[in-house]
Amino acid sequence: MRERYVIIPAGGSGRRMGADIPKQMLRLGGVPVLRRTLDLFTTGLPFEVHVIIPVNPSIKSMWVEYCRSEGLMLRYILVPGGMTRFHSVRKALGYVPDGALVAVHDAVRPLVRREDIVRLYDEGEKWPAVVPVLPVTDSMRLVAPDGSSSMVARDGYRLVQTPQVFHSEVLKNAYRTAFSPEFTDDASVVEKAGVPLHLCPGNRFNIKLTTPEDMALAETLLRAKTIL
Amino acid sequence: MRERYVIIPAGGSGRRMGADIPKQMLRLGGVPVLRRTLDLFTTGLPFEVHVIIPVNPSIKSMWVEYCRSEGLMLRYILVPGGMTRFHSVRKALGYVPDGALVAVHDAVRPLVRREDIVRLYDEGEKWPAVVPVLPVTDSMRLVAPDGSSSMVARDGYRLVQTPQVFHSEVLKNAYRTAFSPEFTDDASVVEKAGVPLHLCPGNRFNIKLTTPEDMALAETLLRAKTIL
Repeated sequence: MRERYVIIPAGGSGRRMGADIPKQMLRLGGVPVLRRTLDLFTTGLPFEVHVIIPVNPSIKSMWVEYCRSEGLMLRYILVPGGMTRFHSVRKALGYVPDGALVAVHDAVRPLVRREDIVRLYDEGEKWPAVVPVLPVTDSMRLVAPDGSSSMVARDGYRLVQTPQVFHSEVLKNAYRTAFSPEFTDDASVVEKAGVPLHLCPGNRFNIKLTTPEDMALAETLLRAKTIL
Repeated sequence: MRERYVIIPAGGSGRRMGADIPKQMLRLGGVPVLRRTLDLFTTGLPFEVHVIIPVNPSIKSMWVEYCRSEGLMLRYILVPGGMTRFHSVRKALGYVPDGALVAVHDAVRPLVRREDIVRLYDEGEKWPAVVPVLPVTDSMRLVAPDGSSSMVARDGYRLVQTPQVFHSEVLKNAYRTAFSPEFTDDASVVEKAGVPLHLCPGNRFNIKLTTPEDMALAETLLRAKTIL
């Protein structure tokens, strides 16, 4: 079994959330989102995961202050973040050896199930790049710059989640490429390097916290522990 | 103000739900999904809505039996459904006069808020075709027939919800076209007729019940009445 790492990029400002504090530091069930996400990888898994969190200075100070006030002794490495998610992941990869499995997981997906984390790492033993996806069940439209829109045949489209799991040497090699604003996740960087992706089922409840409605939904799901 | 109608196509078999009974007849909080959806248009709105429900024979018999057992006296017209959603809506439009507003709403979206229904009809007074949409916040991929996938720049994409609201003469005219399997909603039919669509914000909680996970999510949202 390869050694297992996770990078949790936590640098984003979360402007769509409309809050003063960054979304990864908002409280969910009384606990910062980043803490919930971190706990998923540091507790309750049947194997050890090395956690690397790239953060920008403002979030770092909030986070360190939170940990101090709670007396938390958590196992992870904080590293400096970059200008974008891409640059943060690239920096964090400097702390990951070749020959390992490295997951990258959005800080703002605190509802992923541990059984899915285990399954995705296990798939990662077999494939160089593992990506959890969901089918699109709503109709879709594509809006043009002039505001007009056209229907899109939704069948081939997939919504992409995290954690995405990679052979570390594959991800590190892929991140040698130049930054492109098209890179919204790690699968897109790896695709650019010509590595085939293994798509596998995501989970409906592993939502990304982007808007206040997402926060309300996550609060509701947390309170109803039966479905998590 | 134009007279207001809604067509609730309720003919689908819901194979993805994995249940023996059609998904619109599954119980949600103890009540069939179709009943919940119907109630949104027949109670609690500040105006009257004429409801037309196209159904296939097997659902009709289940529904009529349910209404009899509950002693329900509901205000709607049941009409025969067609082979597909498209054909069902076209048949139902035969019961809608010109000069009205007609919404089409998925039977399996029982969580739309009444304030959104009111807002969408009101927008319909100003525009020939009103379509509620959400931005895509996950990354997206497009899967090719050979199983390979490529990243998609998600920015222009919108997930389309219902109710979609139309000037009835516009929708009736659009439905004179030949059926195409690309028509997954009414906006796509109206687009084909060259009518401009007015896209406006949808709601995160107005989910379409497609999978068992969607049902579990809807049950949870219903129990947490605060966010509906």
